[in-house]
Amino acid sequence: MESLPKEETLQLRLRHYGPSCKLFFKESPIKIVRAEGQYMYDEQGNQYLDCINNVAHVGHCHPTVVKACTEQMSVLNTNSRFLHDNLVTYAKRLTATLPEKLSVCYFVNSGSEANDLALRLARTYTGNYDVVVMDNGYHGHVSSLIDISPYKFNHTGGEGQKPFVHLVPVPDVYRGLYRENVPDVGKKYAMEVKHTIDGARRRGRKIAAFIHESLQSCGGQIIPPRGYLREVYKHTREAGAVCIADEVQVGFGRVGSHFWAFQAVGDEACPDIVSMGKPIGNGHPMSAVITTPEIAEAFGATGMEYFNTFGGNPVSCAIGLAVMDVIDKEDLMGNASRVGNYLMEGFRKLGEKHSIIGDVRGLGFFIGIDLVKDKTSREPATAEAQHIIYRMKERFILLSTDGPHRNVLKLKGPMCFNIKDADRVLINLDQVLTEIEAASSNNRLEQLPYRKDVHSKRSGPVFTGSRTLSHDALFGNIKRPSDNDSDDEEAKRQKSWAGVD
Amino acid sequence: MESLPKEETLQLRLRHYGPSCKLFFKESPIKIVRAEGQYMYDEQGNQYLDCINNVAHVGHCHPTVVKACTEQMSVLNTNSRFLHDNLVTYAKRLTATLPEKLSVCYFVNSGSEANDLALRLARTYTGNYDVVVMDNGYHGHVSSLIDISPYKFNHTGGEGQKPFVHLVPVPDVYRGLYRENVPDVGKKYAMEVKHTIDGARRRGRKIAAFIHESLQSCGGQIIPPRGYLREVYKHTREAGAVCIADEVQVGFGRVGSHFWAFQAVGDEACPDIVSMGKPIGNGHPMSAVITTPEIAEAFGATGMEYFNTFGGNPVSCAIGLAVMDVIDKEDLMGNASRVGNYLMEGFRKLGEKHSIIGDVRGLGFFIGIDLVKDKTSREPATAEAQHIIYRMKERFILLSTDGPHRNVLKLKGPMCFNIKDADRVLINLDQVLTEIEAASSNNRLEQLPYRKDVHSKRSGPVFTGSRTLSHDALFGNIKRPSDNDSDDEEAKRQKSWAGVD
Repeated sequence: MESLPKEETLQLRLRHYGPSCKLFFKESPIKIVRAEGQYMYDEQGNQYLDCINNVAHVGHCHPTVVKACTEQMSVLNTNSRFLHDNLVTYAKRLTATLPEKLSVCYFVNSGSEANDLALRLARTYTGNYDVVVMDNGYHGHVSSLIDISPYKFNHTGGEGQKPFVHLVPVPDVYRGLYRENVPDVGKKYAMEVKHTIDGARRRGRKIAAFIHESLQSCGGQIIPPRGYLREVYKHTREAGAVCIADEVQVGFGRVGSHFWAFQAVGDEACPDIVSMGKPIGNGHPMSAVITTPEIAEAFGATGMEYFNTFGGNPVSCAIGLAVMDVIDKEDLMGNASRVGNYLMEGFRKLGEKHSIIGDVRGLGFFIGIDLVKDKTSREPATAEAQHIIYRMKERFILLSTDGPHRNVLKLKGPMCFNIKDADRVLINLDQVLTEIEAASSNNRLEQLPYRKDVHSKRSGPVFTGSRTLSHDALFGNIKRPSDNDSDDEEAKRQKSWAGVD
Repeated sequence: MESLPKEETLQLRLRHYGPSCKLFFKESPIKIVRAEGQYMYDEQGNQYLDCINNVAHVGHCHPTVVKACTEQMSVLNTNSRFLHDNLVTYAKRLTATLPEKLSVCYFVNSGSEANDLALRLARTYTGNYDVVVMDNGYHGHVSSLIDISPYKFNHTGGEGQKPFVHLVPVPDVYRGLYRENVPDVGKKYAMEVKHTIDGARRRGRKIAAFIHESLQSCGGQIIPPRGYLREVYKHTREAGAVCIADEVQVGFGRVGSHFWAFQAVGDEACPDIVSMGKPIGNGHPMSAVITTPEIAEAFGATGMEYFNTFGGNPVSCAIGLAVMDVIDKEDLMGNASRVGNYLMEGFRKLGEKHSIIGDVRGLGFFIGIDLVKDKTSREPATAEAQHIIYRMKERFILLSTDGPHRNVLKLKGPMCFNIKDADRVLINLDQVLTEIEAASSNNRLEQLPYRKDVHSKRSGPVFTGSRTLSHDALFGNIKRPSDNDSDDEEAKRQKSWAGVD
């Protein structure tokens, strides 16, 4: 599976691949040669626990998905200008997960293509151009989306805010403008949106859309407070604009309680356009936009054809259907809730011991741990966060950081993550935090050995401890799915995997 | 393979899929359930000869490609932030087909993503924004590309030309500003580009790029005259801009003589950025941009990361490598030359008999037949062209039309198209043209039965004639690859296909 020595792979990459395309852990990049479920393996056979790849939604290399791809690819793969059952079956299945008015699909190839099309739909329907976006938001890498992504345009290499873009504050109750103790905090944040819209309109700007990640991801794993979305949607529509929920990062059941994250924030708010991506094909390049008949008809009425060469091909649709099958069959939403809640309880427990853990937030298996230098000032612990992900990587656990201060540890791994995996994360994180705190208290953080250590070779995972012992010692009082339940789930999943090959 | 009755497929599509997404032959859309090589099959088992799907480049469902996908997908499919041999091996292989200076790749998911990134590279490198584009050009469906595609912005539903876009005439020696009898016609068209650039600069505009389809496709299958590209590139660079060759439609050996179409027009001109797409993965959603180290470094130097979730994943790269393997192993470039030249000779021969054929042009298996009402005035035969493709479809041959007047029949099918297939096209087209001419000469074109007939059911291909007899009767004096050669090629191809499964 490895055909080149790692150093040669790296050298060829430096010569032939765009330097803007970054590697994880640039000090000591990882070469992954295979993966299965929630585990990835490097060229030396080391097993990494994958807490970050939300694209491998139903598990790396899930055989149901591989089989669906192979079978359809052997029979037909062509464009959507021909009628095909897969396209319509998938469209019907996908729209069935959404409120009834969201019934018209467009199948495209990436989250970026989806959000670009979502903007075109909104602009055509409203006849307006301007866009209201959340600060720190990220919606994609094509030109039109970098323009509306503060995560890009307000950072290194960015061109700054364009006149047709209007920023609203992130509804972050831990670090934002209004915090957890403010009454009606959702409405307060929503009023900020109204003020922004009203101000823009007074200056003669015409708003086409409010676009938001249903849960902000790159911006720091933010869960908007109850009441926010409903109010914001109301203000947006009063201004003649439409509401776009970007579910690219968080859709397809990750939040556990619902299939879509916008449904999970307690507001019963319904967007006019939903964009989806990453997990939709478990790694296969595909994505979708779903909207209302009214918006689709307005877009169609211009007479301009929308043709997407690969979008909606029968292979992509077969894969999309397989992913939905697996989510159902393996109860991955239930699993996301169980494991996600268990992890969050565990992290909160760690927070009682480690002062660096400022906030633990999430829904299902979409979790952020906001690291702070001080629990009162909430000053972001950026350097520490970087150190932690390097140290966890040495322990063969893949984590990453995000948020404007890069101090939020994020967990959004494959949805088949289990309780044992969760324990492995909790135990190792506990050890790494203990190490960090010792160094910090002696002002030795800079001398921590991560830059030296990452080049050292290890032959296997560091974590080998007994789950029960370690778990009980550390997290004995956390309510935890019984071993039987957990093992049953795992057995069921394994069986389901094995059954299809 | 068909799970729904055709009418139900159509009704579900009307309900759940964007009305902007058009079907081929909207009067009587085709439901395709399987395909192999250059043949597609509908739900009734009718075999269609596919002359139009340039995406299924090495043949529909080629087993080498399916196998490469399945094998890699079973082992690992993840993003390019991890090191992987497939990415670097593919980058090395792809850049080896290009002039040495084009050595840095970006892997993305569609031609549109590729051209959007190409624009970003050009704009960042030059610090300029404006773009010079060819009239009737088409570069993709995302917002930034509709802005620079006259095929879109100047037609139904388009928003017209924006101030940063500068149009130059299509170097079409049959129908354009300067025609085949003008001396130095390539240079004359190039001077038009220079005038446009100079004019824009005098108005204070700063040009980032000249972007062109190496051979214009939607614009009417246009082959630029010798001398054009070299001169245009010179003028472009003198203005501080870069040259982008859009090979999305025409790359990967379709032109037969060269791997890239920009290499085939006789100018030894080398672009600064090449975008590729459609055929690259034989239908798998993938694409690429390749540029020089200088441009890549300038783009990297901004510090903004370029991350494309699916781009460069090991499955896409494995598929890309497999496609290149098949092109080599089955000598598909040689085949494109042989079959393409044979077809063009045949069409020219038909042109002696049928006055509707105004011009036959092409390179390899990229062919346009410009249909005219009158050979002298060259008035486009638009209605006739539409009629022809419907009649050919009834004869189970898939053709389409393009060009600003929709009067150019285009052929750009799978590269495994053979001489027998070519004869099938020639013979059926001859019959359809004879029918059309009879109707036209009696002013009965409007009453031709295609709107009625398309709903009739047929149980098999109309063409059943003996190839040798029909061929000799019609095209006896065309130099033709010997039956032995042709059969050898076919046998070799079949063997190669069979060998991998």
